[in-house]
Amino acid sequence: MSRRSRGSNTWEVRASTLARNTHNLIRDIVENLQVEPNPNKPLIALSVGDPTTFGNLNPPEQVIQAVRDSVEWLSSRSYGPAKGHLEARQAVAQYSAHQGPISPDDVILCSGCSHAIELAITVIADSGQNILVPRPGFMIYKTVTEGLGINVKYYRLLPEQQWKIDLEDLEHQIDEDTAAIVITNPSNPCGSVYDKEHLYEILDIAARNHVPIVADEIYEHFVFSNNEFFALSALSKDVPILTCSGLTKRFLVPGWRVGWVIIHDRHNIFGTEVRKGLSNLATKILGPNTLVQRALPTILSCTPQSFFDDVVFFIEKQAKLAYEELRCAPGLRPIMPQGAMYMMVEIKMSLFPTFKNELQFVERMVAEQSVFCLPGQCFEYPNYMRLVLTVPEDIMQEACKRIVTFCQHHIVSRERLKEIDSNIVQVVE
Amino acid sequence: MSRRSRGSNTWEVRASTLARNTHNLIRDIVENLQVEPNPNKPLIALSVGDPTTFGNLNPPEQVIQAVRDSVEWLSSRSYGPAKGHLEARQAVAQYSAHQGPISPDDVILCSGCSHAIELAITVIADSGQNILVPRPGFMIYKTVTEGLGINVKYYRLLPEQQWKIDLEDLEHQIDEDTAAIVITNPSNPCGSVYDKEHLYEILDIAARNHVPIVADEIYEHFVFSNNEFFALSALSKDVPILTCSGLTKRFLVPGWRVGWVIIHDRHNIFGTEVRKGLSNLATKILGPNTLVQRALPTILSCTPQSFFDDVVFFIEKQAKLAYEELRCAPGLRPIMPQGAMYMMVEIKMSLFPTFKNELQFVERMVAEQSVFCLPGQCFEYPNYMRLVLTVPEDIMQEACKRIVTFCQHHIVSRERLKEIDSNIVQVVE
Ligand SMILES: Cc1ncc(COP(=O)(O)O)c(C=O)c1O
Ligand SMILES: Cc1ncc(COP(=O)(O)O)c(C=O)c1O
Repeated sequence: MSRRSRGSNTWEVRASTLARNTHNLIRDIVENLQVEPNPNKPLIALSVGDPTTFGNLNPPEQVIQAVRDSVEWLSSRSYGPAKGHLEARQAVAQYSAHQGPISPDDVILCSGCSHAIELAITVIADSGQNILVPRPGFMIYKTVTEGLGINVKYYRLLPEQQWKIDLEDLEHQIDEDTAAIVITNPSNPCGSVYDKEHLYEILDIAARNHVPIVADEIYEHFVFSNNEFFALSALSKDVPILTCSGLTKRFLVPGWRVGWVIIHDRHNIFGTEVRKGLSNLATKILGPNTLVQRALPTILSCTPQSFFDDVVFFIEKQAKLAYEELRCAPGLRPIMPQGAMYMMVEIKMSLFPTFKNELQFVERMVAEQSVFCLPGQCFEYPNYMRLVLTVPEDIMQEACKRIVTFCQHHIVSRERLKEIDSNIVQVVE
Repeated sequence: MSRRSRGSNTWEVRASTLARNTHNLIRDIVENLQVEPNPNKPLIALSVGDPTTFGNLNPPEQVIQAVRDSVEWLSSRSYGPAKGHLEARQAVAQYSAHQGPISPDDVILCSGCSHAIELAITVIADSGQNILVPRPGFMIYKTVTEGLGINVKYYRLLPEQQWKIDLEDLEHQIDEDTAAIVITNPSNPCGSVYDKEHLYEILDIAARNHVPIVADEIYEHFVFSNNEFFALSALSKDVPILTCSGLTKRFLVPGWRVGWVIIHDRHNIFGTEVRKGLSNLATKILGPNTLVQRALPTILSCTPQSFFDDVVFFIEKQAKLAYEELRCAPGLRPIMPQGAMYMMVEIKMSLFPTFKNELQFVERMVAEQSVFCLPGQCFEYPNYMRLVLTVPEDIMQEACKRIVTFCQHHIVSRERLKEIDSNIVQVVE
């Protein structure tokens, strides 16, 4: 820790350790990318995990109407309780009944799922301890912990097994300073959805090692045909779990900033201390905005199932489309997702020797084809890129076409490949 | 720091140091108060600093309309930039022109002024350092720092000088670990509004000791007749200042959770590091809700001055009313505020010997008269209570009447007082 003291005869103001060590990996990488699109082609951004970007996916009328109504109410202007209005927490408890028995007291409303994750992790992890997070993974876990001196350790996901967790590696990473295992299911960026059996295996490891779980289930119910989503908490016998979710993705309103933590603690392992701790932390921000809080009971109970089904159906269709197109792209290997709204695509970098890494690949693809995918480094996973699947069909089609063209242009020729191969052999010799 | 290690053969989950050391003083005290109101009298809560509680003060039609419009826009559902939408930051810069020259880049939108204060303090204060805050004062400063190991030191306000700062004490409290001075002007709970001269004196101390200022100006422009509000940043020559404000109080929408930090750093003392640090910290929560962000340009530019004038006029009227009534209450000494929306009232505890402290006084007043004021302990200042001045006139009148009755019932008799006096003398002997 770099403690600093202020000299009293000169100005010497530094940013705190917390501020200096708080980073958002995606934003840092994206801001430093050389992404000047080809002026002759309109930019197609398959980069940001915001399903509203293209305007083709919109919340249902019931949700908008609920907020319209809320705007007129006096009670949607007043301060709410720090943990959120009782009615809103009741609504979340009901909506989340698939997670197991929940009382409104188990729910803490937050300013987006990011904030929920921050509370869930920081309530049980101390400076000097560590949390285990998936690689590839969504790096908000790192953003909200590293500034506090909480260390992030990675466990491996297996691309050849639909991104299941390498269980041996997971257990191996646990040490006496491990405060929590973070499980992202369905996954950003992988689009994997774990089956019951795998979830039980994960729970066994947590139970055996007595490590609580933070379950990031913001993509709950984003599941393609022939897959099923199970909440970790619904399967847990004894492992205490803090589950994080929110309106953001499922209701297509990321800007509204409403999320929640749900405490699952059937054997009172978290006890009153962790529960109280979450309440304490919530008093810093005083809940999400009450405009949406007040609308929450209607939003959560009146949205028709058909709306959810339509959105997932649409995303699955885009996934299939992109998968079929990119399977034919030389040098790429798309991995068909089972849910969420992303697809990971392996870039066989050895076949693109002009690019040092996938970052350069992605940069050049913007420059030439005006298609922007996030480089794997954003998820601590080089040699891959992530596509967002929520774009309109014609745009997705066009994007894939351009990606294929790009690969065709840059893939190494058979002759050159042989040359490289023999070079490698020489080097090895 | 209580680092803890997890035993691997048993469950042993504790709340983190951060969670255990994060407290909201007001909520803690209020939750533990014995406040069962007299069932024969309707409760009058002069306790919570929420101007919307009684329904008599409402945002102007323009503000509501701006949000109604925003609900219909696609862009009010999408993710915004972590620091907030450019248009919204531009609007804040313009609205805050009285603070000095501001560019949109100097503005970070936050989830309420509480969040703004959290960012402003934690971006420059490290664990082990300290911040100086006023006593009596609003304890959000403590809530957002103590869990991080940042210490809170107090400087004295002088009730007999309209709560001006005891400048000698302020300078005396500065040590080599002082990271920032927090100035609350206008003040909660005091209702003081500092004149130019006093603000210059404060700036001199900060400049001489090279300590930056965090200016909490959430009550900016809440100023009664014959007083004037000056933004600290407008008067500062070299002292770098982070000014915190928001919609909460002035626009009567505390539940909407929109606040901001403005960076005033004319001599580049904060430099890029603090600026970058604020951006980093903002990426944790990703800005306030975009529903209100999108409405912000209209809210800040279209609200008629007459609306603000009417609200302040009303509050001043209540202040005068309460002051005149409570001046006549035996054993009380109200201090007439110059702005904000509160009044501090000294309770001469020696004249109420049946009560051990002002907490008991306040509790009993609820039990007998169903009038609830916040005890001074909520502001680290015993022997006082704070009244909220935003209640309707008839209710304020009734509340004051009941307070006077309560004092008349409990004030010590002249005879008993003499007795006590002689006891004290005896003890001293
Ligand atoms: C896995 C995962 N968790 C959490 C979040 C954050 O959600 P929110 O926008 O509600 O903070 C995201 C957003 O992309 C995500 O992908
Ligand atoms: C002095 C002061 N600062 C900050 C705040 C917090 O404002 P917000 O509700 O916008 O977080 C308050 C609220 O009472 C206050 O009195």
